[in-house]
Amino acid sequence: MDTLNLIKSRRSVRKFTKYVIPRCTIEKILESGRWAPSGLNNQPWRFMVLESGGKDELAEYTKYSQIIKNADKIILVFIDKKASYNYEKDLMAIGACIQNMLLYIHSQKLGACWLGEILNKRDEINKLFKLNDNLQLQAAIAMGKPATHLKQGKRKNLENLILKRYKLQAASHKLL
Amino acid sequence: MDTLNLIKSRRSVRKFTKYVIPRCTIEKILESGRWAPSGLNNQPWRFMVLESGGKDELAEYTKYSQIIKNADKIILVFIDKKASYNYEKDLMAIGACIQNMLLYIHSQKLGACWLGEILNKRDEINKLFKLNDNLQLQAAIAMGKPATHLKQGKRKNLENLILKRYKLQAASHKLL
Repeated sequence: MDTLNLIKSRRSVRKFTKYVIPRCTIEKILESGRWAPSGLNNQPWRFMVLESGGKDELAEYTKYSQIIKNADKIILVFIDKKASYNYEKDLMAIGACIQNMLLYIHSQKLGACWLGEILNKRDEINKLFKLNDNLQLQAAIAMGKPATHLKQGKRKNLENLILKRYKLQAASHKLL
Repeated sequence: MDTLNLIKSRRSVRKFTKYVIPRCTIEKILESGRWAPSGLNNQPWRFMVLESGGKDELAEYTKYSQIIKNADKIILVFIDKKASYNYEKDLMAIGACIQNMLLYIHSQKLGACWLGEILNKRDEINKLFKLNDNLQLQAAIAMGKPATHLKQGKRKNLENLILKRYKLQAASHKLL
């Protein structure tokens, strides 16, 4: 599949089969994240992989507990505030890191859901896993083998995303 | 090229040939960005494509003006604060959007550099392009045909990114 098709056909997956993702695949998913770009190459991302026990405990901290329990594994993605140089740029870098993992997961015919609501309980989750204060949860990625067909996604039209409201030398600025 | 190799072989490119990226390719790059995931599917990203005239004017606002002048085109990526539902999550979504574009660019044997220092002048750039206050610059992507071979990248070892410091049912939590 070419890159644009891979990007366009990825979907959030919330129901999974009993399939167990092998550790070598988990390692490649994390590798995908590891190679994201970051400002000054500071690589502020840190990962925690949860399987059965920790997964069920984590599920107590979100209203999406069924997705977490149903998933084969969870990757928690943290920012290491000690490695941070600019919080805004670091968050974008972590978004790039997560997207790399989601694309790799999809390329392997696995599925994932990027969960954000759980950040409401980030302090409690740090306590649960006895993590230092410099680690701050930024996302949970629930993943496994999709149990359902992927539906068509919806996005705004491209023309609604492109800004044309500027008037410097109109001809050379005309877009698309 | 498989997805992991695509991700691992992407590099920041700062020197470009005179090659002109065709508009159909620009459209596919933006398509790649458009299909990123976002919280509540709010799609907070907005794009502006700069060619010769606007590119040179933009170059005045950064110490990396040579990269901008040398690039064939620039995509400015903004957050639309009106479309924002959670600033932190929106920034991660914009990072995912940018990464999609960087990967697609690389898949086409083109190159790009994600520029962040220019955000220091985001207010001035809004004035330059007569943009509403709800638009806030988040990144500039300089792109073109790479003029040099891509060097080897450097990243922290995976074992330094994985958190193992938690003790709930140690056996089931043991990672990799």
